[in-house]
Amino acid sequence: MVQYSAHLDRSFAAVADPTRRGVLERLGKGHASISDLATRFDMTLTGMKKHVQFLEEAGLVTTEKVGRVRTCRLGPRRLDEEVRWMANYRETLESRLNHLGEFLERTRGKAP
Amino acid sequence: MVQYSAHLDRSFAAVADPTRRGVLERLGKGHASISDLATRFDMTLTGMKKHVQFLEEAGLVTTEKVGRVRTCRLGPRRLDEEVRWMANYRETLESRLNHLGEFLERTRGKAP
Repeated sequence: MVQYSAHLDRSFAAVADPTRRGVLERLGKGHASISDLATRFDMTLTGMKKHVQFLEEAGLVTTEKVGRVRTCRLGPRRLDEEVRWMANYRETLESRLNHLGEFLERTRGKAP
Repeated sequence: MVQYSAHLDRSFAAVADPTRRGVLERLGKGHASISDLATRFDMTLTGMKKHVQFLEEAGLVTTEKVGRVRTCRLGPRRLDEEVRWMANYRETLESRLNHLGEFLERTRGKAP
């Protein structure tokens, strides 16, 4: 009955945190190191590492370590599936509201 | 730095679970009692109550108890803010990819 999608579970959980949403927005403008991100979001390096790891496990961020610097970029996933789910959900709602509207239109003035 | 929105935190966490997404989809087609939902999702009444409460706290579901039956409906929130966040995020990405495309176009054939 439940359409299970591990992708959706992980990515919605990933964007359920304001710092992680902020990191995605920041990386949307260009790559950044973990220490850049920690400074920007006024957070310890350890705290930021955890957030980045969560995003990485959700497939929303990739990281690459060169020397002592770990650089973060968006990808490989891009919230396409999540947007699709929300769009479908809203379509169901819209169509239900339209049906209700049509019904009210049809039955207007038909009361005895 | 972080644009904090408690709404977004709670609703993204609410849709990070396949059963809760299923409940929203089901309620998109019409109201249902908690025991209807429990049967449909093959879950105990207690388990389903917890999911419904989570959705209710996120403002995505309202419930009303008449006699011994608690009926669930969608609302008052409808994921509008969530869709807006995702749309903005994707716009940032698109515009970045476009800039990259324009840059590549401009510099094509200009290599020494």
